[in-house]
Amino acid sequence: MAAFTAERVALLGLGLISGSLALALRDNGWRGELLGWGPRVGSLERGLALGVIDRFDLDLSAVIREADVIVVGAPPIATGEVLADLFERVESLPQQPIITDLASIKGWIVERAGGHYPRFVPGHPIAGSEDSGVAAARGDLFAGREIILTPQAHTEMQAVEQVTAMWQMTQARVTSMSISDHDAALAASSHSPHMMAYALTMALADDPLDPMRHGGGALRDMTRIAGSDPTMWRDIALTNRDALIGAISNVELELTELKRLIAEGDGQAMYDYFAKCRRVRRDHDAMLNPLFMNSEDHSMEREQK
Amino acid sequence: MAAFTAERVALLGLGLISGSLALALRDNGWRGELLGWGPRVGSLERGLALGVIDRFDLDLSAVIREADVIVVGAPPIATGEVLADLFERVESLPQQPIITDLASIKGWIVERAGGHYPRFVPGHPIAGSEDSGVAAARGDLFAGREIILTPQAHTEMQAVEQVTAMWQMTQARVTSMSISDHDAALAASSHSPHMMAYALTMALADDPLDPMRHGGGALRDMTRIAGSDPTMWRDIALTNRDALIGAISNVELELTELKRLIAEGDGQAMYDYFAKCRRVRRDHDAMLNPLFMNSEDHSMEREQK
Repeated sequence: MAAFTAERVALLGLGLISGSLALALRDNGWRGELLGWGPRVGSLERGLALGVIDRFDLDLSAVIREADVIVVGAPPIATGEVLADLFERVESLPQQPIITDLASIKGWIVERAGGHYPRFVPGHPIAGSEDSGVAAARGDLFAGREIILTPQAHTEMQAVEQVTAMWQMTQARVTSMSISDHDAALAASSHSPHMMAYALTMALADDPLDPMRHGGGALRDMTRIAGSDPTMWRDIALTNRDALIGAISNVELELTELKRLIAEGDGQAMYDYFAKCRRVRRDHDAMLNPLFMNSEDHSMEREQK
Repeated sequence: MAAFTAERVALLGLGLISGSLALALRDNGWRGELLGWGPRVGSLERGLALGVIDRFDLDLSAVIREADVIVVGAPPIATGEVLADLFERVESLPQQPIITDLASIKGWIVERAGGHYPRFVPGHPIAGSEDSGVAAARGDLFAGREIILTPQAHTEMQAVEQVTAMWQMTQARVTSMSISDHDAALAASSHSPHMMAYALTMALADDPLDPMRHGGGALRDMTRIAGSDPTMWRDIALTNRDALIGAISNVELELTELKRLIAEGDGQAMYDYFAKCRRVRRDHDAMLNPLFMNSEDHSMEREQK
């Protein structure tokens, strides 16, 4: 396992995820410099005041020249655009930085960014919150969580090692997948669940009985992510279209089957269906609750949900 | 606001909800006796050992004779059957007890129970957990949560007052609705969300990419209730059929609309859709997180989710 040897990490765009990465590196003893750049000076000033970054610079060229590792933290479409710009800018540099990103889709971004910059390592931390912005950042966001890297055939091994080492410092679990597997798996495990939460919330929104007023813990959890950042989710839906439609269709097929069982009043088949789901969910419980499974807080976490 | 004057409460069936009611009454200073009865002596013994009940009796007739208030805690279908039996048994008693239940549907149960026992107050606490059994009971389960009572035209006011007073002791918020409004609202706010969690879990279960391994907090929350008790949910699906199918269909319509927006790549319409959902969800945040909105723990709860 390689050590993370970067002396200066630049965060392009300072928000929940990039801010949490900065805090996690600090919390876990990394001693390098954290440099911020972004389109919104307010976020940078807030990040500086909160101690998330050491300094910021509004001159992108200067930031790129100084950084050993550049982390692009932006919604998917902006990420693709920033990467395309970066790849042009770094071409002429004597010391070429390692570049990685945080976006939830990989295929569209790699295509949009273009080129074959060998020191670019596409990445995706499977962690987040319905809150956004650097003020919501926290150093333990990635602990026990999965970070998926999707290196390509032309990606330099040393760059992959360094990005891996960086994420390992945050207590995350780093894995590697192909770009297409990533986008299909995430369409199923994250993107379509968000669409479920949106559809459910919208179905309740205009109901004259205002059923959401009568919601308990189930509804709280099933709609929580409907509070997510609309720009981010618009971008994901625009850029992972086919996989997302496929994943939604798979859930729709199951809903059709469930409605059939309910209409027919087939109690035994329903019981079997629900019992299988319980088994599957429980089999993945440790994976889905990585922090709490390792601590005494687990019972608390289950209760608070 | 009437005081809760019962001296002895009998819990028929001891599980998560009835056990939590017992603990909540104790925790909030009620000094009467808590008497258990149920089909599984193991639950009763566990409840006694845990201090949830004061004693149990396997003779139902004796329990009924002694109790001022009887709480039926069973899955929906069993609840209807137990109530029908109870109504016959209490007819000849000199002191007729108040009877209430905890089931998630009301129309089917009232019909199955039959009769017009004036001291029966149908009830439904909007609180629960994917865990079940008396060992999971806790005294703060109802704090800030809604308890819906659905009294009928023939229901005695004094009985409604006493059941209201009982639940108010648990720090719950007691409301009243018609049976049909209750079943429609709950189909939308609780029953169909459970079907969404089941459908999503099943769609992921057989996917060769095992996308559930790559789930984060979103998937954790969107599938948590797929771990719920299959018997309970089979019963709910069997007994609230039409309202449930209607509620699922409403979500399906929204999924169809979302798929259309995604297929057409209509970014502005998606943004508007997602932003409206965020607004609606945030407007109901305090309602859906009643405990944490009133305490400093709120930030923690949001983070843990």
